[in-house]
Amino acid sequence: MSYYQMNEKLAIDYVKGLGFFSETARLVAREVGDGNLNLVFIIRDEEAQRSLVLKQALPYVRVVGEGWPLSVERTIFEANALEIHNKLVADYAPKLIHRNDQLALIAMEDLSHLQLMRYGMIEMKKHANFPQHISTFLANTLFYTSDLYMDPEEKKKLAAKFVNTQLCKISEDLIFTDPYYDAERNNINPELRPYLEEVFWKKDYLWLEASKLKYKFMTEGQSLLHGDLHTGSIFAGEDETKVFDSEFAFFGPAAFDVGKIIGNFLINYVSWWGKDVDINQIKDYREYLLNSIVDIYNLFHKKFIDNWERDAQDISVKVEGYQQQYIRRLFVDAIGFCGAVMIRRTHGLAHNIDVDGIEDLKKRSKTQIRVLELGEKLIMNREAFKNIEEVVAFVKDNLGLEMKI
Amino acid sequence: MSYYQMNEKLAIDYVKGLGFFSETARLVAREVGDGNLNLVFIIRDEEAQRSLVLKQALPYVRVVGEGWPLSVERTIFEANALEIHNKLVADYAPKLIHRNDQLALIAMEDLSHLQLMRYGMIEMKKHANFPQHISTFLANTLFYTSDLYMDPEEKKKLAAKFVNTQLCKISEDLIFTDPYYDAERNNINPELRPYLEEVFWKKDYLWLEASKLKYKFMTEGQSLLHGDLHTGSIFAGEDETKVFDSEFAFFGPAAFDVGKIIGNFLINYVSWWGKDVDINQIKDYREYLLNSIVDIYNLFHKKFIDNWERDAQDISVKVEGYQQQYIRRLFVDAIGFCGAVMIRRTHGLAHNIDVDGIEDLKKRSKTQIRVLELGEKLIMNREAFKNIEEVVAFVKDNLGLEMKI
Repeated sequence: MSYYQMNEKLAIDYVKGLGFFSETARLVAREVGDGNLNLVFIIRDEEAQRSLVLKQALPYVRVVGEGWPLSVERTIFEANALEIHNKLVADYAPKLIHRNDQLALIAMEDLSHLQLMRYGMIEMKKHANFPQHISTFLANTLFYTSDLYMDPEEKKKLAAKFVNTQLCKISEDLIFTDPYYDAERNNINPELRPYLEEVFWKKDYLWLEASKLKYKFMTEGQSLLHGDLHTGSIFAGEDETKVFDSEFAFFGPAAFDVGKIIGNFLINYVSWWGKDVDINQIKDYREYLLNSIVDIYNLFHKKFIDNWERDAQDISVKVEGYQQQYIRRLFVDAIGFCGAVMIRRTHGLAHNIDVDGIEDLKKRSKTQIRVLELGEKLIMNREAFKNIEEVVAFVKDNLGLEMKI
Repeated sequence: MSYYQMNEKLAIDYVKGLGFFSETARLVAREVGDGNLNLVFIIRDEEAQRSLVLKQALPYVRVVGEGWPLSVERTIFEANALEIHNKLVADYAPKLIHRNDQLALIAMEDLSHLQLMRYGMIEMKKHANFPQHISTFLANTLFYTSDLYMDPEEKKKLAAKFVNTQLCKISEDLIFTDPYYDAERNNINPELRPYLEEVFWKKDYLWLEASKLKYKFMTEGQSLLHGDLHTGSIFAGEDETKVFDSEFAFFGPAAFDVGKIIGNFLINYVSWWGKDVDINQIKDYREYLLNSIVDIYNLFHKKFIDNWERDAQDISVKVEGYQQQYIRRLFVDAIGFCGAVMIRRTHGLAHNIDVDGIEDLKKRSKTQIRVLELGEKLIMNREAFKNIEEVVAFVKDNLGLEMKI
């Protein structure tokens, strides 16, 4: 079956063959994709109250149009990653129902009763169970796909299934390269441009550190990463957390996933500066965000070590001191990646609505500068932090006086 | 064509079809393999003075017999690596004439007019041009297959052709794991055993550093390595250097190839202690060895940087300070790998004839202890050396008084 592009009618016809719905079901499809890369249909049997999501990769980047072609093979990476997530962290990823690599599509559990976490956070929603959930997601995916646990030959064969050249290239460019100079693809708030030109782009010491992080991203095949673990890749409800959009999955440094989610919390933390919200509400929400960051990291740390103590296989990693330096490096790198993703979301190609929701461009630029400054400080000081509590204290103390609320 | 094992007659029949020899040539074949993994035939047309080498992988480790099966796909890695060496360093690798992946064989230039470098070195032969040659080999293979030069997508696709699970596993076990405990596969001089049990195997701090190097070996996909660059993988003549046996090739840390060749020079350096050779000859040869090490490293360094200045592609690596830290890390890691390969060659599965040529086991054990002690010191102090001259001075000063000649 060769590739053809779905529409709502074709999507209904296709899923009828999957045995998921009854043969006589009256199905309704709705295209809900707001991403750049894919079509996403929710297909529903209203009577039986059953639904699924059909996601199909487009052979180009949607927002740019057909001028930026992108192989649809990324669906294969997403399906491969989902299969692993369904094994290792079944509660925290959508259930894969069907895959068709030729059509570049996957059918999966419909999670539309949940809200995108990023939208929840701009409404100041608190997700009390999120640290428990995401820490398990991180600890299990990052430990059980590493050489700590896997047979090294099996691990290399699995890594070979995730040679995700195109999507890695996007991250390499958009996260680690373009933001550090006046690259064409950057998406720059005109009010921010003077700061970039006069200050930010002159910081070669920062670009150097970003390049070191890029090197790790490009060469350190430690664990299977989600690869794009921001708050826009997570559905969060009262008691549920579901990580989706795993098409960026590849074997890279474990710290990248950890740092990316923390960085997205910090973007939200900074974004309240410049928003017209009651100051006590902001104080309270920021307290919640920082507490969440501490819990995410410490629970991840604990669960990762629990996995290690219970299930580490390689005799070489059991020698005195190995675990400590492994975890320490992971922490330091995570703080570095955290800073890098904060920076890329201010003036790189893709932004976060947390900050871009500030409509006044002047005000927005001031908030963006605080994001950039915090990102920079985290990168530059990453070796100095002893633990996540120190990072959080640093965030509180170092955003400049006018940031304090 | 499915796999069948060659013998001298079948080898002659096979090469007749390659068009390398004239149709009427009278060919003579001789099996000369002394390795553990392969059959090696030299096939010769005496009249035309033409010859080639036919190398076929065996589906098991020869020395152990059929009890240690090993996939013959390693020939594919060797052929793939040779193709790249023929492009990047044509003068310093055998010319690939033919490959047949189904039969797990390659035909290549006959280099039997040259001597195995290791044998030359135990005869105190000097290879005056070797540093020039091997430094080019290293600088070109390690630079032009890295992300410094290659398009990152092409590099990842190339790396996917070198997912060399079985042979990497051999290195992971035999170099970085087994020597640090009483592993079954170790090959231990009984006179050395007390030192191992009472001293060496109690050094957890050393095992920790070896495990860190193992982590780099397993996860850092920096450049296409030869993967087994010791003096037994090199033919060296007066004016010629040919690196062969690239079946261990994979994408790993560039420092591994650099450190391995230096480590083999240092094993030879130590080996003269305990040999019945004129003391002035030893002094002279050791001077030659240390000078060679300095030249190998410094020429490599210079050529690698020349390649960088001329051909680096990625804008991220041009930022101030990046090159310096990249090269510094490569140097430090190389000294670490150098120490690790010295250690594995004393009591791991595979030894060097340099030291094992000492027939008196008691004497041999004393020399082996000096190899182990030097290897350890290089690993433990690797961060402290500023340059290769300091390493060489350290070797001279730190082998213990009784080592000085």
